[in-house]
Amino acid sequence: MSNNTLGRHFCITSFGESHGEHVGVIIDGCIPGLQLDLKYIQYELDRRKPGQSNITTSRKEDDSFRITSGIFKGITTGAPICILIPNQNARPNDYDHLKDVYRPSHADFTYEKKYGIRDYAGGGRSSARITAGWVAAGAIAKMILQEKFSVDIQAYVKQIHSVSCPDSLPVSKEAIEASIVRCPDPDAAKQMIAAIESAKEQGDSLGGIVRCSIQHSPVGVGEPVFQKLQAQLAHAMMSINASKGVQFGSGFDSVLKKGSELNDAWTIENGQPKTQTNNSGGIQGGISNGMDIYFDVAFKPTATINHEQDTLNKDLEPVKLSATGRHDPCVVPRAVSIVEAMAALVMVDNLLHRL
Amino acid sequence: MSNNTLGRHFCITSFGESHGEHVGVIIDGCIPGLQLDLKYIQYELDRRKPGQSNITTSRKEDDSFRITSGIFKGITTGAPICILIPNQNARPNDYDHLKDVYRPSHADFTYEKKYGIRDYAGGGRSSARITAGWVAAGAIAKMILQEKFSVDIQAYVKQIHSVSCPDSLPVSKEAIEASIVRCPDPDAAKQMIAAIESAKEQGDSLGGIVRCSIQHSPVGVGEPVFQKLQAQLAHAMMSINASKGVQFGSGFDSVLKKGSELNDAWTIENGQPKTQTNNSGGIQGGISNGMDIYFDVAFKPTATINHEQDTLNKDLEPVKLSATGRHDPCVVPRAVSIVEAMAALVMVDNLLHRL
Amino acid sequence: MSNNTLGRHFCITSFGESHGEHVGVIIDGCIPGLQLDLKYIQYELDRRKPGQSNITTSRKEDDSFRITSGIFKGITTGAPICILIPNQNARPNDYDHLKDVYRPSHADFTYEKKYGIRDYAGGGRSSARITAGWVAAGAIAKMILQEKFSVDIQAYVKQIHSVSCPDSLPVSKEAIEASIVRCPDPDAAKQMIAAIESAKEQGDSLGGIVRCSIQHSPVGVGEPVFQKLQAQLAHAMMSINASKGVQFGSGFDSVLKKGSELNDAWTIENGQPKTQTNNSGGIQGGISNGMDIYFDVAFKPTATINHEQDTLNKDLEPVKLSATGRHDPCVVPRAVSIVEAMAALVMVDNLLHRL
Amino acid sequence: MSNNTLGRHFCITSFGESHGEHVGVIIDGCIPGLQLDLKYIQYELDRRKPGQSNITTSRKEDDSFRITSGIFKGITTGAPICILIPNQNARPNDYDHLKDVYRPSHADFTYEKKYGIRDYAGGGRSSARITAGWVAAGAIAKMILQEKFSVDIQAYVKQIHSVSCPDSLPVSKEAIEASIVRCPDPDAAKQMIAAIESAKEQGDSLGGIVRCSIQHSPVGVGEPVFQKLQAQLAHAMMSINASKGVQFGSGFDSVLKKGSELNDAWTIENGQPKTQTNNSGGIQGGISNGMDIYFDVAFKPTATINHEQDTLNKDLEPVKLSATGRHDPCVVPRAVSIVEAMAALVMVDNLLHRL
Repeated sequence: MSNNTLGRHFCITSFGESHGEHVGVIIDGCIPGLQLDLKYIQYELDRRKPGQSNITTSRKEDDSFRITSGIFKGITTGAPICILIPNQNARPNDYDHLKDVYRPSHADFTYEKKYGIRDYAGGGRSSARITAGWVAAGAIAKMILQEKFSVDIQAYVKQIHSVSCPDSLPVSKEAIEASIVRCPDPDAAKQMIAAIESAKEQGDSLGGIVRCSIQHSPVGVGEPVFQKLQAQLAHAMMSINASKGVQFGSGFDSVLKKGSELNDAWTIENGQPKTQTNNSGGIQGGISNGMDIYFDVAFKPTATINHEQDTLNKDLEPVKLSATGRHDPCVVPRAVSIVEAMAALVMVDNLLHRL
Repeated sequence: MSNNTLGRHFCITSFGESHGEHVGVIIDGCIPGLQLDLKYIQYELDRRKPGQSNITTSRKEDDSFRITSGIFKGITTGAPICILIPNQNARPNDYDHLKDVYRPSHADFTYEKKYGIRDYAGGGRSSARITAGWVAAGAIAKMILQEKFSVDIQAYVKQIHSVSCPDSLPVSKEAIEASIVRCPDPDAAKQMIAAIESAKEQGDSLGGIVRCSIQHSPVGVGEPVFQKLQAQLAHAMMSINASKGVQFGSGFDSVLKKGSELNDAWTIENGQPKTQTNNSGGIQGGISNGMDIYFDVAFKPTATINHEQDTLNKDLEPVKLSATGRHDPCVVPRAVSIVEAMAALVMVDNLLHRL
Repeated sequence: MSNNTLGRHFCITSFGESHGEHVGVIIDGCIPGLQLDLKYIQYELDRRKPGQSNITTSRKEDDSFRITSGIFKGITTGAPICILIPNQNARPNDYDHLKDVYRPSHADFTYEKKYGIRDYAGGGRSSARITAGWVAAGAIAKMILQEKFSVDIQAYVKQIHSVSCPDSLPVSKEAIEASIVRCPDPDAAKQMIAAIESAKEQGDSLGGIVRCSIQHSPVGVGEPVFQKLQAQLAHAMMSINASKGVQFGSGFDSVLKKGSELNDAWTIENGQPKTQTNNSGGIQGGISNGMDIYFDVAFKPTATINHEQDTLNKDLEPVKLSATGRHDPCVVPRAVSIVEAMAALVMVDNLLHRL
Repeated sequence: MSNNTLGRHFCITSFGESHGEHVGVIIDGCIPGLQLDLKYIQYELDRRKPGQSNITTSRKEDDSFRITSGIFKGITTGAPICILIPNQNARPNDYDHLKDVYRPSHADFTYEKKYGIRDYAGGGRSSARITAGWVAAGAIAKMILQEKFSVDIQAYVKQIHSVSCPDSLPVSKEAIEASIVRCPDPDAAKQMIAAIESAKEQGDSLGGIVRCSIQHSPVGVGEPVFQKLQAQLAHAMMSINASKGVQFGSGFDSVLKKGSELNDAWTIENGQPKTQTNNSGGIQGGISNGMDIYFDVAFKPTATINHEQDTLNKDLEPVKLSATGRHDPCVVPRAVSIVEAMAALVMVDNLLHRL
């Protein structure tokens, strides 16, 4: 019932603010006896961290982390794991001009009305900075998925503004990480980077689509009728800042096909049941069917832009806002690691009891 | 933690199978002192029930219901409310031919692998018939929303296959219910019905999109960071049978706009803060901002069709399947009431504590 | 979060009132593939049912039950199991004289103040009649414990008023069920029955203590730090009507011993680690240690008596109350089956994930 | 579902180990707009901290704390509050001799069997040191109870070994804090201290009983049928290290009375409904009735003693254990603040939604 806790078995509790001492996460329910690969956790944090390239925000954070509980001589004990990620480059005073004004399409107005008080330093709790904790927890989830279940999770940028990545290409982690935009198609990646750079120059921002696939999932993941796998994944994805929609398998395009065109016929391949197509996205009746699970998450352009905008202040008077502060012209390349982390958290939450 | 329970304050627990004695729902957390309008509950059940028109399945069910607990002299007492909806037209033997075969894009294979046993009579627990209980609970949720919060929930069919309903028209409940397809635009409705009838004749099926709006929601609904309003709604919508995706406000189309084009500028209208556009779909930072909340849900074509299909049997041998049994050529018109019910359940779950 | 749901994996949701159509329970999370022994469920219900002897209430209920979901051809499917137990001997009008008056030490006053409405027919939801559903669910829990884990649960009456059962005697199910008071010591049983009959004659009521033991529990049951086994059991026991306290192992008497007297020294017996004494009651650090788990539950005398009592009516005017209606002079012999059921529900909830 | 989370609205998540970097707590669900009284939190921590007198352990910890999230300029924001309490006097190497041996009546054996790994430094996660976090969270709960509901919570030592505090005396906070043993009766306090000092000299330990009362509770607290107030309180109390039992109102002694002697007759006092006696302990039907809520918690003598004891090592060989390390001869005086904290957490969890 804790609103900042996700998961039912491998539970993460998120805490911290953008410009406070640290952001962090408690993981409750991690298996004991796990040797944590600290370098891998840092690798995942580095994929999310700000300042990693010229198409991300210029805020500089190492996102180095500290584990302060739940391990004994480097091994997990089954006790809650506390991970702290200090805010090193916090500049709370950069935001004093936002104290009394509501930025358009931000959480300023709603947080203030809901809680009666607003931490305006970099958005406080509403900042995507807190997803650093989620990514750290997700890294541990991925370790468990890989070591114990051989499940692999992989996301990439499928679209930035009007530039799409062709669907058919085979995707490797190397191809994804080869470009700073995390699109595995080199040509599309180049165009995406150019589009982001151009938006940045104009003080504007772009959105995009992340595609995520979960490979080698065992059959049987998902709990009808109210914890179907797609419901859990949708919940997790719609928890990510700036996400606007999610679709599974053939998604919204399913509408344009007839049943006879969309149904996934069962067949046998190397003695294993497979579907000839995978419009189901690996999920049938809310339960994984053994095929690759895949889905798309849409992200809107960053709300913070360097344009003058119409808005209101606390007294509900119209004012013009020209935002300063540091921000991303496009969050989508960094969102790749967050989408993967959330998918890993959902999967491990469902698989843990099989150990 | 019960997988068949939805909600955290106004909790519904779903039970029952397609061809068992009844389907039902327990509502735990309903406010006491509420006079239940039984006719209204029946009205909502009638909107969902099979056999309501020639574009739905021919299974005949009154979907009359019985409340067996939680009320005293017609008034809710705060105790759990049990609602039972008998299956009157059950024909479990109609499904014996499906006993050993997995229907494509159905839950047959996954249920059998997950549970080791499968109730093959009309899909058993995986049947959309169980949503009757959800709709009954949703009707009570709607009563509370209307009486106590003046919140109104309204869904309609926005698209069937390639036929779309124009976006701009004003929508009334009367216009929606004027056609059996529940599209408020008369011309589009006519084309949609024709398309469904044609698919039915061909033994095929169609999908579509339902748009839902939540009107007059108070500001402040939604609980960051893991119970954001859009996350809760996405969870609920992706729990509905045959749903393939969900998008909020400008949704996937947000990707094609720049921040400067998409941001919702704040302004004052009749002394109230409003946004000039509503690309946010009424939600910012996971919390309602007082504008209309709206979202779309995509439904795939019914998996059951009267075509011969390739599939496997229990021994993993390839077989040809020609389904019989009764089914909908398009579930989308009936899904309208389910989408509304789920939206109502989410809203009341979040608002109840304000009473 | 449903207040009428107990358990986190094997979840039971209770519903129904004393004089409504039925009382019932939904079990969500039962393992699939279980052949339900209906006779055994009835046997357990019979141990709890009213009218079973001359020391219980004269209300006549068969407590026959009906399972309406979650099974297919007699086998559990993993779907929610609905069990309905009709109220056959309901006489709601017997209670009209209690409509405006608050019975002393009953839930009348508190229910009315909390909910603003009170189902005064036999106490409505506050009646111990609803524990019939818990006992039915507990019977299924016991089946799983016995079949899958060889865990045995056994309770008996240890004390009625001032009559105690000696501690040391070996206890068999036969000895417990040999007397209507469910005390395994024949002499004590005789005295207890005499005491209850005497109280009944005087229109008075008696309390007592039930001792429960859980035998052959595996090591490792219990989840520190907030789901320790004793915390879960205490929660379950204090949910039973009329319970006033619970103690584990040496319980309140531990206070009178020094650490050097109370500590359970570890030793080896037949190659297995055992403690020489079992003051811990089989639980250390919140986790079962492999020894028998045992605890006591105190029950107060039934609040309903045939004496004239001082009380208040709805207008807060002093009135004299002479209760009529049917009631038990002592609930403790019937509580034995409820205590066992609750213990079984807690144990199966913790062990299920091992299957 | 997180095992280290308590509460459903005001949720605390506990983390940390006895000899790690810190122990801590996350509070999720605290009301926004609260000015935290840091001195009061420290005051409560000081009542629990080790080394506060010569009848407690000699481990020296300031138990100074740091709040690192959830507040903005000293005011709560509604975001999760992280409280860290550094371990300053950790001496993990003091425990190397316990690495391979199971201390009698400790959690050593059960933790090792359950998790396959054991943090043997001061008991790791099983140490009562982690209750420092609970007390810090409880202090905030108490602030809310006092400021918003005028609810007062007060516990004292009622018994140490065979020395009892007379029941009838009026109790003030000053009287309780007047002695290091926290018994409000000066004579009994003197005898209790002498008994503890004598046990300490003998290298032995004593147990006792804490009585807690919750004063001025509003009517209506508690949620039947599975979140009754006494069930929630019992759950919380049985979560405290070394607790062996809990009883409400007349508790186990209820057994020795007849219904006609025990029932609490309703009467009017100053226009308010009151019961003439309070054997119910302020709770009827699982719901507070407006009278003082009171209950007792039994604590066993500390398991760590300076006697040679029989036990087993990891290879299940009999060994003699002579514990060293620092420990309390009697934890009961320090447990007073923990019992109060847990009671406050339960109460605020139930009352919060009324704000």
